[in-house]
Amino acid sequence: MASDSDLRTQEIENPIDIAEYLFSRVYQVGVRSVHGVPGDFNLTALDYLPKAGLRWVGNCNELNAGYAADGYARVNGIACIITTFGVGELSATNAIAGAYSEFVPIIHIVGTPSTKSQKDGLLLHHTLGSGDFAVFSKMASHISCAEAILDRQHEAPLLIDNAIRECFLNSRPVYITLPSDMVKKKVSANRLKTPLDLSYPPNNPEAEDYVVDVVLKYLHAAKNPCILVDACASRHRALKETHELIQKSGLPTFVAPMGKGAVDETLPNYGGVYAGDGSNPGVRERVESSDLVLSIGPIKSDFNTAGFTYRISKLNSIDFHSYGVTVRYSEYPGVRMNGVLKKVADKLGKLSIVPSPAAPDNKIPDDETTSSPDSAITQAWFWPRLGQWLQKGDVVITETGTANFGIWETRFPADVTAISQVLWGSIGYATGACQGAALAAKELDIKRTILFTGDGSFQLTCQEVSTMIRHQLNPILFVLCNGGYTIERLIHGWQAEYNDIQEWRYKDLPAAFGAQPGSVLTYRVSTKKELEDLFRDDEFASGDTKKMRFVELVMPWDDAPKALKSTAKAAEKRNAA
Amino acid sequence: MASDSDLRTQEIENPIDIAEYLFSRVYQVGVRSVHGVPGDFNLTALDYLPKAGLRWVGNCNELNAGYAADGYARVNGIACIITTFGVGELSATNAIAGAYSEFVPIIHIVGTPSTKSQKDGLLLHHTLGSGDFAVFSKMASHISCAEAILDRQHEAPLLIDNAIRECFLNSRPVYITLPSDMVKKKVSANRLKTPLDLSYPPNNPEAEDYVVDVVLKYLHAAKNPCILVDACASRHRALKETHELIQKSGLPTFVAPMGKGAVDETLPNYGGVYAGDGSNPGVRERVESSDLVLSIGPIKSDFNTAGFTYRISKLNSIDFHSYGVTVRYSEYPGVRMNGVLKKVADKLGKLSIVPSPAAPDNKIPDDETTSSPDSAITQAWFWPRLGQWLQKGDVVITETGTANFGIWETRFPADVTAISQVLWGSIGYATGACQGAALAAKELDIKRTILFTGDGSFQLTCQEVSTMIRHQLNPILFVLCNGGYTIERLIHGWQAEYNDIQEWRYKDLPAAFGAQPGSVLTYRVSTKKELEDLFRDDEFASGDTKKMRFVELVMPWDDAPKALKSTAKAAEKRNAA
Repeated sequence: MASDSDLRTQEIENPIDIAEYLFSRVYQVGVRSVHGVPGDFNLTALDYLPKAGLRWVGNCNELNAGYAADGYARVNGIACIITTFGVGELSATNAIAGAYSEFVPIIHIVGTPSTKSQKDGLLLHHTLGSGDFAVFSKMASHISCAEAILDRQHEAPLLIDNAIRECFLNSRPVYITLPSDMVKKKVSANRLKTPLDLSYPPNNPEAEDYVVDVVLKYLHAAKNPCILVDACASRHRALKETHELIQKSGLPTFVAPMGKGAVDETLPNYGGVYAGDGSNPGVRERVESSDLVLSIGPIKSDFNTAGFTYRISKLNSIDFHSYGVTVRYSEYPGVRMNGVLKKVADKLGKLSIVPSPAAPDNKIPDDETTSSPDSAITQAWFWPRLGQWLQKGDVVITETGTANFGIWETRFPADVTAISQVLWGSIGYATGACQGAALAAKELDIKRTILFTGDGSFQLTCQEVSTMIRHQLNPILFVLCNGGYTIERLIHGWQAEYNDIQEWRYKDLPAAFGAQPGSVLTYRVSTKKELEDLFRDDEFASGDTKKMRFVELVMPWDDAPKALKSTAKAAEKRNAA
Repeated sequence: MASDSDLRTQEIENPIDIAEYLFSRVYQVGVRSVHGVPGDFNLTALDYLPKAGLRWVGNCNELNAGYAADGYARVNGIACIITTFGVGELSATNAIAGAYSEFVPIIHIVGTPSTKSQKDGLLLHHTLGSGDFAVFSKMASHISCAEAILDRQHEAPLLIDNAIRECFLNSRPVYITLPSDMVKKKVSANRLKTPLDLSYPPNNPEAEDYVVDVVLKYLHAAKNPCILVDACASRHRALKETHELIQKSGLPTFVAPMGKGAVDETLPNYGGVYAGDGSNPGVRERVESSDLVLSIGPIKSDFNTAGFTYRISKLNSIDFHSYGVTVRYSEYPGVRMNGVLKKVADKLGKLSIVPSPAAPDNKIPDDETTSSPDSAITQAWFWPRLGQWLQKGDVVITETGTANFGIWETRFPADVTAISQVLWGSIGYATGACQGAALAAKELDIKRTILFTGDGSFQLTCQEVSTMIRHQLNPILFVLCNGGYTIERLIHGWQAEYNDIQEWRYKDLPAAFGAQPGSVLTYRVSTKKELEDLFRDDEFASGDTKKMRFVELVMPWDDAPKALKSTAKAAEKRNAA
């Protein structure tokens, strides 16, 4: 005689296991590799990955896995991470919070104890010993835009679908728990035939048209309008519409630091980075004298505005957001920027265009070009020089610290994907993110992934170089060796011991992490000439080599990009206020 | 004319800065080194450490710092960690949750943005961008026994005192936020003259006497009573009372796995490890046939009972807890074990003692002694052999995995401090904890700190070896190289790829982490003879050398301690149930 559960299975049309359903959806929305660390409550679920066409990455720890998923999502569009209950998921908290803060869609699946163990309140390992199995999901709720607790078999497909859709549409992490006994429970595969609808709900047409008219009215009346592109243009998938507007309008276009990589910086109307006091030369004057700034996807955070030195009057601003549009002091909530931008571009009339000075074209400052080739590599020299070496399509990752500010001075070739974490600003992020970004790049046939991190930052997450080796990724890693936490020195404790670090032999690490002899090229450069030679080395620069390249880039401990200096000063002042 | 704030300062008797007050208290309760990572919101606070007599450790990342603080607290009695807002504190979440779960007192101080920035809801880095500055303290509240939000100058001393007292008395983490602008605000130093009262509130004497009488009644009536010591005897500081009872009574005494190290295993009445099916030979029969088990500080979790195979009838049990006593089915809430145990020992009458068989004295199983000296190092051979090599006073740290279960077969010399995380069970813990434990040991003039971790586990937190090098610590590190996550293989996925890891050249890491040539001794042993030679090597075994010792201990990938095998089988079954 059939058991209850068998009977139910017989009643299910096209039955498949819940884990298979879940991973099929993960695959359908575009994930190809899943990050994470195995743990006793997720093991049976991991068995299902290959069948769904998913590669298991297997990171060295969960924080790194979270960063890697973030990097993967920024290149690929969306990512997935699997951790285990308690010990695993909590280690990823900082990375998930970062993705929440910066609008990066990550599907976080947590393998949990069985529903029976939870109901019985068993005193299991990986618990707080209180019998409360909901405590970690409560913590996660603060950093997830949706949660799906898969403890009822027949609801699972609906909950999974909703969570993944929310993840994509809000561009933020979601939290899905998969109890160990639910992995093999059957549900119908029928829903899988219909792909998830990931389109943004359309704006109310009347409201959208109203906003478009208002925007156009101000735009047509403006004497020297310009466009300023920021993070949320990328993060909320409005790049196509943004580019259309930039190209059709011919308006002078600038980027905020978090908008780096969002626009084609080779366009003739691209004018450089605007960040208040930290702007590229001439940009500040141009933007702040504009009588109308179309600000697309702004995040006016301290580090994105060089310490709140952003000075554009609200009376001269139109802000386009995922959640609405603001024209001067008028708010239009619920009108998403994407549709508005498209219609504005479509309906553009004649504009008054005051061309902006050309963007700084990776010109090295004069006092730096005359210095000796054997002199130290300065920040002021390096970042424009880097811009001359970058290639179309590169993925460029910069760490919170000198790299994140230095890159403001680098004008990108076309189609560069720039990855950084300017708002959340967690050091250690970049090395983990590089693993995920390099993997996504490989899957998408992007040739070069290039990391710039600091020595202090690298120490937090160094072991992810091992994961890169394991998956035969070939990124180019620059560790900026300047003897500690430079960004912190600038804020407080210029020569304090707490801003020093243990000096490592960084380039010996790939071999210690098991790289086969010859599979990783290592370098140490400390003069301008050495770096010039490196940049001219074909094997080093190649996008086709299978070899990882690891560079110790020695820079003076007391040097920093000028934008970082002013931003740090503002931060110090605010801390004491 | 004096400002408001100056006036207030003049009114304060013996004014000192809040940071100085805080760190004075931290010092007073016994902390000498503070773990953590510098970050922009905690930098000015760090300036105050030297003045308070505190050493700054400066870990490689916050998770490791949290583990290290946990290890430090288990040796030293209490620990302190400092992180920065958001990005820092969240990275430590898993470690703090582990300390909460396992009753380890850690004072967690978080440097936060200034009260003004918080009040103004500024869009700062290290925030979720929502203007909500309380979100991280809400998350921390689930894993802290008290919180002190120091945003009002004059309340700070009281809040600090309360938090630190709660930390000690509950033996759990507390969470203290120190806004950057409060660091230098003045408070009176007067309270500092009175040390914090860290004594447990006494039991209601009538209730205590009542419980003591009940316990004695059953104890005097029992025919073959015994004592079973578990984690909370140590964690809630009842070791003195426990030892008195063991010695005075002469009762056969056993330990649960989490009680390893809590009692003197060289005592004639010590009988071995009791863990249901995972017990030392003969112990299970002896304990389960006892008609009265005095169970001191029990935590009957799955991994502490070899998968809930603990089989002692409640009718034959008296459980002594920090929060009360349970005699058979009678509960005596609020009567702390410490006072009860002391009085029971004082008032003991004549007991009926059936001596237990002697505890296994690190005897290597017969089939292992006859194997070739060139044969592989098996788990069954290694752990008793280790017991022969350990010394009085050693600090022994075992990682969740084979080591945590293997150590059940090791009989300790006297005064061994055993550190493990059997309930929380986060892999990676042991290496971080070793840094803190070794530092505390150095401060307390304990000679040897010895780590046993697995290769998979070591990869999560490897960089803490760098911190050990930086502080010239000299632990003996064993990395058990067996090709992956063995504990997980035993639960599920015996040969699954997800339980494999990248193979590292582990012993090359100390040099890559900047160890000076000759300062670290490295070894690789894979046969019994090689390990015998190593154990006989005086330089290796010395407690006086200044050198760190790093051993790759190669063991077969498919071997495991028998207790782990049965526990894992039970876990697998429960996961599927």
